[in-house]
Amino acid sequence: MKIRVGIIGATGYAGAELVRILLTHPEAEITAISSVSFEGKKLSEVYPSYRTLCDMECGTQEEVLEKSDVVFAALPHGLSQELAAQCDNAGKAFIDLGADFRLESEDEYKQWYGCEFLDYDLHKRAVYGLPELFRENIKGKKIIANPGCYTTGAPLALAPAVKAGLVSTEGIIADSKSGVTGAGRKPSQGNHYPELNEGFHAYKVANHRHTPEIEQTLSKLSGKKVTITFVPHLLPVNRGIISTCYARINDGVTFEQIRQEYEKFYENEFFVRVLPDGENADIHNVKYSNFCDISLHHDKRTNTLIAVSAIDNMVKGAAGQAVQNMNIIFGLDEKTGLIIVPPAF
Amino acid sequence: MKIRVGIIGATGYAGAELVRILLTHPEAEITAISSVSFEGKKLSEVYPSYRTLCDMECGTQEEVLEKSDVVFAALPHGLSQELAAQCDNAGKAFIDLGADFRLESEDEYKQWYGCEFLDYDLHKRAVYGLPELFRENIKGKKIIANPGCYTTGAPLALAPAVKAGLVSTEGIIADSKSGVTGAGRKPSQGNHYPELNEGFHAYKVANHRHTPEIEQTLSKLSGKKVTITFVPHLLPVNRGIISTCYARINDGVTFEQIRQEYEKFYENEFFVRVLPDGENADIHNVKYSNFCDISLHHDKRTNTLIAVSAIDNMVKGAAGQAVQNMNIIFGLDEKTGLIIVPPAF
Amino acid sequence: MKIRVGIIGATGYAGAELVRILLTHPEAEITAISSVSFEGKKLSEVYPSYRTLCDMECGTQEEVLEKSDVVFAALPHGLSQELAAQCDNAGKAFIDLGADFRLESEDEYKQWYGCEFLDYDLHKRAVYGLPELFRENIKGKKIIANPGCYTTGAPLALAPAVKAGLVSTEGIIADSKSGVTGAGRKPSQGNHYPELNEGFHAYKVANHRHTPEIEQTLSKLSGKKVTITFVPHLLPVNRGIISTCYARINDGVTFEQIRQEYEKFYENEFFVRVLPDGENADIHNVKYSNFCDISLHHDKRTNTLIAVSAIDNMVKGAAGQAVQNMNIIFGLDEKTGLIIVPPAF
Amino acid sequence: MKIRVGIIGATGYAGAELVRILLTHPEAEITAISSVSFEGKKLSEVYPSYRTLCDMECGTQEEVLEKSDVVFAALPHGLSQELAAQCDNAGKAFIDLGADFRLESEDEYKQWYGCEFLDYDLHKRAVYGLPELFRENIKGKKIIANPGCYTTGAPLALAPAVKAGLVSTEGIIADSKSGVTGAGRKPSQGNHYPELNEGFHAYKVANHRHTPEIEQTLSKLSGKKVTITFVPHLLPVNRGIISTCYARINDGVTFEQIRQEYEKFYENEFFVRVLPDGENADIHNVKYSNFCDISLHHDKRTNTLIAVSAIDNMVKGAAGQAVQNMNIIFGLDEKTGLIIVPPAF
Repeated sequence: MKIRVGIIGATGYAGAELVRILLTHPEAEITAISSVSFEGKKLSEVYPSYRTLCDMECGTQEEVLEKSDVVFAALPHGLSQELAAQCDNAGKAFIDLGADFRLESEDEYKQWYGCEFLDYDLHKRAVYGLPELFRENIKGKKIIANPGCYTTGAPLALAPAVKAGLVSTEGIIADSKSGVTGAGRKPSQGNHYPELNEGFHAYKVANHRHTPEIEQTLSKLSGKKVTITFVPHLLPVNRGIISTCYARINDGVTFEQIRQEYEKFYENEFFVRVLPDGENADIHNVKYSNFCDISLHHDKRTNTLIAVSAIDNMVKGAAGQAVQNMNIIFGLDEKTGLIIVPPAF
Repeated sequence: MKIRVGIIGATGYAGAELVRILLTHPEAEITAISSVSFEGKKLSEVYPSYRTLCDMECGTQEEVLEKSDVVFAALPHGLSQELAAQCDNAGKAFIDLGADFRLESEDEYKQWYGCEFLDYDLHKRAVYGLPELFRENIKGKKIIANPGCYTTGAPLALAPAVKAGLVSTEGIIADSKSGVTGAGRKPSQGNHYPELNEGFHAYKVANHRHTPEIEQTLSKLSGKKVTITFVPHLLPVNRGIISTCYARINDGVTFEQIRQEYEKFYENEFFVRVLPDGENADIHNVKYSNFCDISLHHDKRTNTLIAVSAIDNMVKGAAGQAVQNMNIIFGLDEKTGLIIVPPAF
Repeated sequence: MKIRVGIIGATGYAGAELVRILLTHPEAEITAISSVSFEGKKLSEVYPSYRTLCDMECGTQEEVLEKSDVVFAALPHGLSQELAAQCDNAGKAFIDLGADFRLESEDEYKQWYGCEFLDYDLHKRAVYGLPELFRENIKGKKIIANPGCYTTGAPLALAPAVKAGLVSTEGIIADSKSGVTGAGRKPSQGNHYPELNEGFHAYKVANHRHTPEIEQTLSKLSGKKVTITFVPHLLPVNRGIISTCYARINDGVTFEQIRQEYEKFYENEFFVRVLPDGENADIHNVKYSNFCDISLHHDKRTNTLIAVSAIDNMVKGAAGQAVQNMNIIFGLDEKTGLIIVPPAF
Repeated sequence: MKIRVGIIGATGYAGAELVRILLTHPEAEITAISSVSFEGKKLSEVYPSYRTLCDMECGTQEEVLEKSDVVFAALPHGLSQELAAQCDNAGKAFIDLGADFRLESEDEYKQWYGCEFLDYDLHKRAVYGLPELFRENIKGKKIIANPGCYTTGAPLALAPAVKAGLVSTEGIIADSKSGVTGAGRKPSQGNHYPELNEGFHAYKVANHRHTPEIEQTLSKLSGKKVTITFVPHLLPVNRGIISTCYARINDGVTFEQIRQEYEKFYENEFFVRVLPDGENADIHNVKYSNFCDISLHHDKRTNTLIAVSAIDNMVKGAAGQAVQNMNIIFGLDEKTGLIIVPPAF
């Protein structure tokens, strides 16, 4: 019998991408979806590409909870805590694509999101769902904080070096570039086609909410408090994030050691592809897939490690990783439903 | 046991797209690929998006023939006739994505392609593989002429009306717009990014080789010789073809009759979606999938039918349809391996 | 002394484009701009590309009228009639980029726009400002109805053949494709970057308000009532319109005659470039300029003329043509301020 | 009498952009152009956007030298030294858009370009043409090394802080993103539309030839040898470079001081626009113009200056700056012919 899956916020971009992936998942079945904005409408009326494939009607949160074994929530921050409690009470797994359970420090959550923890116990039982780094913690859990998009790509690029202490944790810079879907479905002047097309700019410079989340991950890996400089940019493409990460290599460490560490660290990770020397991670090569490609580069003149990761922000950076987490907590092979070949063009 | 599939010309765009689709086909297995330009190289060196998914090496045509039950050939025209004969002799199915077997008239083949038929018997046993229109002829065949891209989208838009005699077969116009992958993988000035980006133009106006192929299909459907005006244009997108087709509605025929005819004609066709009134076929909604969306419009002021079809030129217009043909001739459900959800963005 | 120019609706796309062109016009000076949405804001706050070049503040319509010799209005239809009357009373020239004065028939205006003529005398004194076709009528006028974008490109493509009676005026089809700026500055779901990017579709099929305006022009040229089929499409580019126009060539007329007629018709028109055989009009080649490129093609098999025009919808299709009209009514060389080299990339 | 201008390499992208700008320069006249690849062809056959505006035929280098007062050379590196000598002997000004005269150190030139200095005296009399930083040196010179594209944007972003000693010159990082025209006109697999479109990647990581040139400029400004980490990326847009530059703020220096320094440094520079707090430099806002927009940001948590510059790589990063240099050495107002309004869309 298939896992009964419910999606709350199915008409947002992350929700719609969950639908795309789950429709061909062999062990799961979408049994209910909800949307505040489009209640009563078919999903295929909102996204005509889904016509005949998902003509399911958007219902209410309550209906979703009732009809599913696992609830995915793709909601603005602040709306997931209560929902998590309801799922918890009803014995359902809850995978949150929002930010409410990502930060372990309530102080940081307050500082960056302006909200408080409603239930400390719930927060303690939630787990940060970045499988390649924290898989063991995820198993057996039922409340998953699915990472954000930047907070998946940059940490994966840096993790092996930081964890093994091969680079300095001071002065790390992550210069990231994201496709537009990261900004969501709601039209705005900045994402109006003629104003974004052929443009490119940084935004929320050194001030983006994903900063503390990246730091939390790197701090866990290194065992000490890490502070980074993080600058996101907006790319005129639909999907994909490149994170170009800079870290000073520690004295006595060679670049070859670093490369070996990366290859070992990720050797059993299907979704992480460490590229050979001479290749560059490119969002083109991971589109629509759950892969994270990483290329490693050495600035010999300043002895700096430059690790570049490429992900699809909507898949490994959102819906795909959420399904990967579902697979883990339901005891399935992690790759189930996620072997999506990135198109060559 | 899975069907053993070989691909000749695997490093061209159609070949690469066959790989993408066949890698997740549950009843088929790619057993050999070949490429003249990249012999000895891994496919994933040519297309890094396939890394770890298809690291198979490109071999020779001979190797492909030897190791497969069905051979897909994605070659420039003129190179498939001999290959078809070899497959025929070896008892293997042959699906040709090139043009050699598409035209039944040798005269037209000479006129538009400058080549001759090498073996009349072979040509007689070949069949034109547009399943929605000629499914019954395809069953039991082993040499399939897979249609071209424009020659799939425009005929599907017109077929129900032409076959039922609801529109005049004189003065039909097909104004088509194709994404760039239709021009293939080889770099050229016209497809150099800065010269194509933000541009748009018609090309080979009333002079494109797909013209006689569209006419052949419409003539078969209508039972009389049809001549059309066909103008292709180049869209600055990777994938997709819109064909805007114009035909004068016959006296006494209502638009409502036409709509009903389309709905009946395609009611059991999974891959054709006739859109309701008020919607417009959009390449956005069929990308990466084998769907053909059709929207119907009535110019009341001139009593003209405007039927617009949208396909992905590399899928329904090439590799997807080829796999659909394989499914038919091997007795599989036509949808096998082809339920690809078109991404919502 | 320079012409004092005022722009009403300066923060819309047509208004902003007028600013771009007029800022370097040697005989004109922008003396006042207005905007309902951004009153009190600097134009360069709305469009940061204009910083230091036009930091003028948006004022009211009244201020614009007071400070200018000529008023350009880039407003939604229905708002220009009263404004025209005010300009008329104040002795100022009025160039309307909206639709209020374009149609000579009040019935058609009612049918397509749902509004009535407020002042018949005013409408009689207004003139349709397509200089290449109606230059002599424009001279000496003070109320100019600047044509729409589609209504410039399609008529210019057809005019010489229609006027000289070389093609049938029955069954003319204009299949047009426009860049996104034609839809204006206001964000919408359809123009949200991720939903338009890599997409393409027809819209308002055989139902677009520019239809009667194109017909009005062709009817004037041919001397009889012309009805056409007009289908616009939305291109994922910022600027440019291709109009692919189809007309049956009259018996006894050769394509060579038609070509000669076009070359003669436009030989003294700086802004119309009739391309030689073998070239295709491309929006790439007219971007940011006031040019209209026209390529001519002959479908010998059906004896159809295919005339393709390319314009920049915001320049020759809006602001540039408006400035061309200003030059005419102020007795300047028509090219003044409009010799803008279309970038090669 | 106008300056007689010759362009060698007129059919490359930088050459074609020189033509675009010079065609409307009021004090200059293009008298001859040359191209090895297109000798005997009209420029408008190579770039149809220039039809009727520049139908001049491509001749030889010799003809260009003979007919001009100033020679612009847009050639691959290694080809300019001899040409410079010829111009020098003939008493003509020479503005080199290639790399031959940019580096003052022959060792670095050898290391990064593999060539030698042919004439030391000539190199001594050449001057590096970045007017905002070295204007006084340029006046009176006749051999100008026009800076590269990255080497204009990154130094302008950092110059005020580096020159005033407000940031550490150790650990500076320039993370740059360039449009595709930077790679030139020649088609390649990497710039083939379908493979670049919707893609993004770094290239020549910490290994790009512009590195020593940026360092040379920063070293001159700071008075000590500066080594930086420089990583370029390829943006799927035609034009524009964003350089996101990171530098540690020196102890005791406030961000407010830095901002004041920038505003003072550039207060009389028409082509540099220091943006107010809260705005982000965007290539969208400088396209087709000679502007360099700079936005300043403070990462308080790590006390890092993040200075972001935006230029059009083909204008301020190539042809526009070359014309700016011409204006200087011919005693014209630097803005002459360069007041190009960046389009709002």
